[in-house]
Amino acid sequence: MPLFSASQLENMGRAIFRAAGTPEDLAERVARSLALNNQMGHDSHGVIRIPGYVQEIENGSMVAAARPAIVQETATTALVNGNWGFGLVSAQYATELAIEKARSAQVAAVSINRCNHIGRVGGYTEMAAAEGMVGLVMCGIVSSNGSPGVVAPFGGSERALGTNPISIAVPALEGEPVVLDYATSVAAEGKVRVARAKNEPLPPGTILDSDGNPSTDANDFYNDGVLLPFGGHKGYALSVMADLLGGFLSSSDIFPNGLESFGTLVIVLNVSAFRPLSDFRTAVSGRLKKIKAVKPAPGFAEVMLPGEPERRMSARRKVDGINLPEDTFIKLKDTAAKLGVTLPA
Amino acid sequence: MPLFSASQLENMGRAIFRAAGTPEDLAERVARSLALNNQMGHDSHGVIRIPGYVQEIENGSMVAAARPAIVQETATTALVNGNWGFGLVSAQYATELAIEKARSAQVAAVSINRCNHIGRVGGYTEMAAAEGMVGLVMCGIVSSNGSPGVVAPFGGSERALGTNPISIAVPALEGEPVVLDYATSVAAEGKVRVARAKNEPLPPGTILDSDGNPSTDANDFYNDGVLLPFGGHKGYALSVMADLLGGFLSSSDIFPNGLESFGTLVIVLNVSAFRPLSDFRTAVSGRLKKIKAVKPAPGFAEVMLPGEPERRMSARRKVDGINLPEDTFIKLKDTAAKLGVTLPA
Repeated sequence: MPLFSASQLENMGRAIFRAAGTPEDLAERVARSLALNNQMGHDSHGVIRIPGYVQEIENGSMVAAARPAIVQETATTALVNGNWGFGLVSAQYATELAIEKARSAQVAAVSINRCNHIGRVGGYTEMAAAEGMVGLVMCGIVSSNGSPGVVAPFGGSERALGTNPISIAVPALEGEPVVLDYATSVAAEGKVRVARAKNEPLPPGTILDSDGNPSTDANDFYNDGVLLPFGGHKGYALSVMADLLGGFLSSSDIFPNGLESFGTLVIVLNVSAFRPLSDFRTAVSGRLKKIKAVKPAPGFAEVMLPGEPERRMSARRKVDGINLPEDTFIKLKDTAAKLGVTLPA
Repeated sequence: MPLFSASQLENMGRAIFRAAGTPEDLAERVARSLALNNQMGHDSHGVIRIPGYVQEIENGSMVAAARPAIVQETATTALVNGNWGFGLVSAQYATELAIEKARSAQVAAVSINRCNHIGRVGGYTEMAAAEGMVGLVMCGIVSSNGSPGVVAPFGGSERALGTNPISIAVPALEGEPVVLDYATSVAAEGKVRVARAKNEPLPPGTILDSDGNPSTDANDFYNDGVLLPFGGHKGYALSVMADLLGGFLSSSDIFPNGLESFGTLVIVLNVSAFRPLSDFRTAVSGRLKKIKAVKPAPGFAEVMLPGEPERRMSARRKVDGINLPEDTFIKLKDTAAKLGVTLPA
């Protein structure tokens, strides 16, 4: 497998997006986010997405040069129109807006519509945590063309919900933010695709077949099966809330063109409205150390904190580099060649 | 089992709390909340709590006549001191404050410390939904005396977290709010107690024994065992967030008296800052109908919406009355007798 640094991946992405018509500043933002996702170990949300994004630009569902715009706002809220540009650009813009509003008004909520794939939701809440604020993001993947999503409601056997990711990040002492960041389904669809490609069974409890019976055969998912929400009725309820607060508060359900929209709600809280930030950072880090120190259960080497696996992987890949699967690299080269780009790596 | 209406239960509770030194207005609020929890089917959060609350008043950990007070506030935030009164009073007060602030400032966040047991968290988010707003509540049960809680972190075998409940409520068409309301543990401790009393096995995945091995014997929990978070690492991350945002943002960790505090964060969003409320209500109800209409999986009679079981139970018990277990009624009568109260029922 070819080995890259995050900045090499970023340069490749930037060159491809520039060639696809994206302005330099936006191309840089998107490429950097994807490369950082690779560095954190979330390869499913890294540069593997580039060929798909370029395809969306070519088929018109994504507008390469679009910039988000504020539709309506107050001192504490905004509704942002992503203008069908890169979802990562829209979500970063909305998060920066929420952080600025929370800086002066203590709390802010920004909702985004006409928004494409926003990538790793933890990336946005981490922006708030880096400013000493709490970030909360919910994303409801909805469409107006009747596409039902991929996840069944608890107790159901048909698709009705998206994988609707959520994230919360809380600042702790320097370099130790605690980050919840996951799909509200048991697994992302990407993992089912990987299992099918490798001809490996899925972990029990991941999918139902088209008759609503439990299955571990990934093919059953693609044959009208469904992904399950995580944690039974509890994770299902979270998925519904992400759907309504991400998708419906932003009016992402009303677009007549039938595009799938990653309706997103970003909430930011300014810690210092409640407690001096340095006190809070110290108290949180002390608390996390206690949780971390809990004796592992049989079969576990240690207790991990939310966000710790990603932080650890990031530190390792900064040193060792990022192994890109051959297949991903070939697809990147093909996409680049199609656009007349010679990859800088 | 004796049969009561919610108002009969409320009258009993009110009389007992009055006799324990609680002013009429607070006694009414607490008794009404508990009676409504019974009506919704949450008997574990109903009048069964009254003897325990009276005991807390007697041992000094709860102050019968205390009223919450604002410690610091802005147009959008407040830190509320519950003054160790009834947690239900503090949480209602904080929620009303958040609703008022959100009415003028669109978004509000109120944090509570020195707070006793707040009961059913869904009761507060439903207050926001009843005003056409979105409510979000996270409760971190923390103590400064080293009491470690009852829940293990994912991968751990020792107690480190509370059952840390969360709730989100979203307004829909009249009478159809959608309500997420649960502990972030697989089950509340009350359910383990019931299983032990009945000598019944627990559902697999509920607890670990003191060696960190899975067990279905409720006795193992009381012998240094632990409750598990729901949904593996995903529910665990939510539990940590409720701990930090409920318990630590409110500074509930710093009280030297060692009391257990239900540190609570209430966030309220005004829907109309994002979308006309009537549009939103209609869109949400339409969406919920689609989810509800999904074909049930084998073993399920129907797909239930978040909050639907409670709404249904409430409708039934309004007609049929509330069956109070004989044991609960005897304890209520004993508590009443001790305070010189003749129960009005």
